[in-house]
Amino acid sequence: MDKMISQAVIRRLPRYYRYLGELLDDGVERISSNDLSKRMHVTASQIRQDLNNFGGFGQQGYGYNVAYLHEEIGNILGVNETHNVIVIGAGNLGQAIAGYVKFEKHGFRIIGLFDINPELKGKRVRDLTIQMLDDLPEFVKHNDVEIAALTLPKTSAKTVAMKVVNLGIHAIWNFAHVDLDDIENVVIENVHLSDSLMQLSYNITQHKN
Amino acid sequence: MDKMISQAVIRRLPRYYRYLGELLDDGVERISSNDLSKRMHVTASQIRQDLNNFGGFGQQGYGYNVAYLHEEIGNILGVNETHNVIVIGAGNLGQAIAGYVKFEKHGFRIIGLFDINPELKGKRVRDLTIQMLDDLPEFVKHNDVEIAALTLPKTSAKTVAMKVVNLGIHAIWNFAHVDLDDIENVVIENVHLSDSLMQLSYNITQHKN
Repeated sequence: MDKMISQAVIRRLPRYYRYLGELLDDGVERISSNDLSKRMHVTASQIRQDLNNFGGFGQQGYGYNVAYLHEEIGNILGVNETHNVIVIGAGNLGQAIAGYVKFEKHGFRIIGLFDINPELKGKRVRDLTIQMLDDLPEFVKHNDVEIAALTLPKTSAKTVAMKVVNLGIHAIWNFAHVDLDDIENVVIENVHLSDSLMQLSYNITQHKN
Repeated sequence: MDKMISQAVIRRLPRYYRYLGELLDDGVERISSNDLSKRMHVTASQIRQDLNNFGGFGQQGYGYNVAYLHEEIGNILGVNETHNVIVIGAGNLGQAIAGYVKFEKHGFRIIGLFDINPELKGKRVRDLTIQMLDDLPEFVKHNDVEIAALTLPKTSAKTVAMKVVNLGIHAIWNFAHVDLDDIENVVIENVHLSDSLMQLSYNITQHKN
């Protein structure tokens, strides 16, 4: 598989996966790139180009097999395997993430919820018990943790991220309002909610004029 | 101002704003595009190009005035004005969003939290009292609501979005796992957490190989 696939294509893949999942749920077996294009509001040529990065999947004039394409994109995205996730920061957002059952459907299994606030120790969130961050090294020894979601204040995010990486966790889903790009040997995906809200307000302003 | 600024540039603006805010907090008065480039891990030419979309802001060999650039980018993003926000869906995520005080610093004032679950009626989240969605039309009459954040299951998101738009709210911050692009006359910003998690798992898989 081509390793030089742009992040722009990667950003679009989950959306394909989501639409194909909906088609599957609706019992659709086959779809042309034109029909998929109408549903997704992207051009058919964009769809063909994107999917060609991975070898195509379609037959000319015959369209895509929905189940097959869904499965294959799932494989590319790695969502047909199980990924163990811990959440560090058991505030509102951390509890929301930890309680979000939908992630499990896509193979992301939340297996631990950590905080530094002793008042939260032992509190239950769904089937998880909030643990103290000091217990993380021991937890990591006994559990195969692949991803750490950081729902922390920006002041502690970097320190905790380094700690996590030193414990051998090499993927961070970062909700803290800070970039963690300086840390080596780790894959990072940022969800900057304030940035997203600012894009919205920019587009509101433009829309008004 | 040029209206044809690409969404790629817009996506980068909040990040400039964030870094400039940190520089301001650190007491930095002036910064060259080279130094900003090192901090942000983007090329200096990218920074100059991005900012030139809005007329520049820098003087050759003199660098950027941090406070001025921060203020100007804030103006472009519309974060120096107040935007009233309501949150619809008072589950974990809705409560997390409603309780996130940082948004206020950037002018986003959460003024209402709504749900359809009668058990949540009257519950307090920060200084907000959860109201029933049926009361929204009356609320909108008496309050200037600009943005509705939808933290709802995907099955109800579309219906609620249409309702919101019919009430005269023309900006939606959508956390539901569905695109709302078909709705007219509304500015939408999506936060698809599952999509983000899938990008992370794609990049983990690539990193392993």
